[in-house]
Amino acid sequence: MKEMEQRILKDGNVRAGNVLKVDTFLNHQLDVELLDHVGAEFYRLYKDAGVNKILTIEASGIAIACMTARHFDVPVVFAKKAKSRNLDGELYTSLVKSFTYGKEYNVTVSQKFLGPDDTVLILDDFLADGKAMDGLLDICNQAGAKVAGAGICIEKGFQPGGARLRGQGVRIESLAIVEEMDDTTGTIRFREQ
Amino acid sequence: MKEMEQRILKDGNVRAGNVLKVDTFLNHQLDVELLDHVGAEFYRLYKDAGVNKILTIEASGIAIACMTARHFDVPVVFAKKAKSRNLDGELYTSLVKSFTYGKEYNVTVSQKFLGPDDTVLILDDFLADGKAMDGLLDICNQAGAKVAGAGICIEKGFQPGGARLRGQGVRIESLAIVEEMDDTTGTIRFREQ
Repeated sequence: MKEMEQRILKDGNVRAGNVLKVDTFLNHQLDVELLDHVGAEFYRLYKDAGVNKILTIEASGIAIACMTARHFDVPVVFAKKAKSRNLDGELYTSLVKSFTYGKEYNVTVSQKFLGPDDTVLILDDFLADGKAMDGLLDICNQAGAKVAGAGICIEKGFQPGGARLRGQGVRIESLAIVEEMDDTTGTIRFREQ
Repeated sequence: MKEMEQRILKDGNVRAGNVLKVDTFLNHQLDVELLDHVGAEFYRLYKDAGVNKILTIEASGIAIACMTARHFDVPVVFAKKAKSRNLDGELYTSLVKSFTYGKEYNVTVSQKFLGPDDTVLILDDFLADGKAMDGLLDICNQAGAKVAGAGICIEKGFQPGGARLRGQGVRIESLAIVEEMDDTTGTIRFREQ
């Protein structure tokens, strides 16, 4: 998606430690018009996949999921990272090791919101090592739900998650794939798609 | 907003400890069509207030904020609850004591996303004791931003936050105000608006 690549080049910042900061439009401040275009693009890619539910993980993924769900006219379910008093009943749980937060956490989804009748589109802002995606796929597997595929705003193509998941047969559609980036020069090169 | 009240009566569940579960449509599974109507209603209420930014707090608030921002055509900024590697630079920080999670946490917003030129609409799913709202108002105050008011999906009118904040002169618009609820009978009574 050219618009995503152009926006990353315009407003993204490469930092040391493989960090790509996109907080002006994707994960702290949110450009809702851009997210609407993101949603339209995921709809174009997955409209024939029988999707009846969108699954994401808090927090930034919720914005992308809502703005995409409008195009599909399906509900969103977002996995939670912390144990809340509002979560009760039977839960699906999967342990995830986060790069961004530097710790392990459980992702949880109430069993009543995911089951064998569901065909799920999984959405997230980033795909790097793929640990969060592993957790969401694990939860879909526990639920017996079918996974249509995943939609990612920015894939770090130089980290192993995307190749590994595609190798496992998961359909991954990334709107921008960063092939390499350099925090000393600030340059970003995208994979041709 | 009758649609919100009716949905709470249909799908909400009253639990012991003043918990109103609305996880089927508002804070775990998300009914995006309902949220679009919520956004339209907040726009109707605040369209003449000069709002140029919507502020919320992760996680559920993000869904409401995005679906409302579409109507205003303004960006969303969501306050973060945890220290992330993606947060750097100068931050506004305020300490909040959470009822839902049973602990204290810092809410943080990058200073580059909020300043004296902003007129802010603060959105959240619930208002009860008002602790999260205090934190967001404190951050707006630190930023020198003007607060147009707050939009709340469900106010627990039997808890003190709403009355206290209105007493401080903050405009609070709640789509449904629960006057009383009973976990033994499951009954919910709304305040007339």
